[in-house]
Amino acid sequence: MTDKVGFIGTGIMGLPMASNVIRAGYPVWVFARTQDKALPLIQVGATLCDSPRQVTEHADVIITIVGDTPDVEQIVLGDQGVIEAAAPGKVLVDMTTSSASSARNLATRLSEKRMDMLDAPVSGGDIGAREGTLSIMVGGNPAVFERVKPLFEAMGENVVLVGDHGAGQVAKACNQLLVAQHMYATAEALLLAKAAGVDPGRVREALLGGFAASRVLDCHGQRMLNRNFVPGFKAKLHQKDMRIVLQTMGDCHLDLDGTKLAAEGINRTVDAGYGELDTTALLQVLEARNHLKLS
Amino acid sequence: MTDKVGFIGTGIMGLPMASNVIRAGYPVWVFARTQDKALPLIQVGATLCDSPRQVTEHADVIITIVGDTPDVEQIVLGDQGVIEAAAPGKVLVDMTTSSASSARNLATRLSEKRMDMLDAPVSGGDIGAREGTLSIMVGGNPAVFERVKPLFEAMGENVVLVGDHGAGQVAKACNQLLVAQHMYATAEALLLAKAAGVDPGRVREALLGGFAASRVLDCHGQRMLNRNFVPGFKAKLHQKDMRIVLQTMGDCHLDLDGTKLAAEGINRTVDAGYGELDTTALLQVLEARNHLKLS
Repeated sequence: MTDKVGFIGTGIMGLPMASNVIRAGYPVWVFARTQDKALPLIQVGATLCDSPRQVTEHADVIITIVGDTPDVEQIVLGDQGVIEAAAPGKVLVDMTTSSASSARNLATRLSEKRMDMLDAPVSGGDIGAREGTLSIMVGGNPAVFERVKPLFEAMGENVVLVGDHGAGQVAKACNQLLVAQHMYATAEALLLAKAAGVDPGRVREALLGGFAASRVLDCHGQRMLNRNFVPGFKAKLHQKDMRIVLQTMGDCHLDLDGTKLAAEGINRTVDAGYGELDTTALLQVLEARNHLKLS
Repeated sequence: MTDKVGFIGTGIMGLPMASNVIRAGYPVWVFARTQDKALPLIQVGATLCDSPRQVTEHADVIITIVGDTPDVEQIVLGDQGVIEAAAPGKVLVDMTTSSASSARNLATRLSEKRMDMLDAPVSGGDIGAREGTLSIMVGGNPAVFERVKPLFEAMGENVVLVGDHGAGQVAKACNQLLVAQHMYATAEALLLAKAAGVDPGRVREALLGGFAASRVLDCHGQRMLNRNFVPGFKAKLHQKDMRIVLQTMGDCHLDLDGTKLAAEGINRTVDAGYGELDTTALLQVLEARNHLKLS
């Protein structure tokens, strides 16, 4: 029997993800704080609800993909929230990038009502969401994961159960700290080439065949060379994600100075007024410090 | 007509590279400071010479792959050096990782004798050298590059002319700063996963499908998980290469703090007594600071 699916959050990510779920044949109930944003889904057959609670009453699997950790907590635990209609057999799937500790806490709260939860943040941006090629990092119970997997596969390609509750969010934190540091390194490498009188585009090409190769050098490096700072993934969202990384690091009593440096770089990108640009606008911060333009 | 090839330097990289050149059918003349090291090449048909000058008298293309910038300068400009037998039509190909400014200087000095030069450092380690799968980053004249290209293809797979004299060394500097920062980021990500109670190996797998993917997360990440610090690429050699990176950065009046942080990490790796281990032993420095073992 096909699960009935609830969707809470219809932003730049949630809208195309929900569209792919509807296209895959799932019946969908939807809630959005700004109801207009759900209209494109209503037009293709989704049913509009007036609260997370109402979504949960109708659906078996309730997907949340909203702004930040407190938004998820409000949707689940707040007035007219998911928990008010929690019931055995239902599953909350939070695909927001939020904190692992919050994911564990919500899982515990829902388990008291015998409702399951998976944390399942994504990587791949709005393009991945539209094309159904997201990477999905999942934390939770293996049997629940297997049940929801076909639904994940309507939205993504690389779907991995990383571990228990919170493990998906931990993997996403690791993802974001790697991307931030790889961006920092890519910008520095391209600037060094430029300053040394060598074509940075040729250097990028030469290095993509060797040990320095990364998806960031490939994709974000080309963006930097093109000065294409149209998001993509906004710097202010990367900043929010790095706050979660630093919080997780602090919770674990770790001192990771590469991560701190990269997070500061993204803070400076937002402070410089580039928060609405793609996170690769970090390049402009490093350019300004070095009095050098890449192209 | 097949070029006659000279090989100066028969260490962990030079020996297998020269073997591949002999296997491809080139006649080879060889010089090594420690003559015993050249014996395996003599046994397969190479001719032993007693100086770089003598190698240059016999060969058309003279390859140097030695320890560091001053070694290359000594071989070319010193007593019984390459320059004493320099002649029009001959090409010096320096495959050592050395400084771009030195490469440009040597090219100028040789051009006064109408001898050509390419700087052509490699990436891919001793495994790449043995298997003939090195990445080769080349700086110099396009016509000279085309002439030497078949010889490069006996040693490597990804052979790119990056630009004019010194451009190969600049690309290699960019390569090394990227690898150093990617290693730093990989170690931090794996430690964060571990500290947060999630299997770091599962996180690595999950992230290899997305934007955080890198060759370093793939290869060096697996080495770290296995605690396999058998080189590979020794930390003390990475330290030497990072010195060249910092020198190039200084020459260009750049302040690249991600690069500085990663270079400090590798210095601390050597200072901790891990200089003869693989450069991924950096993990142990970050582990000690955070009172946490990855595995």
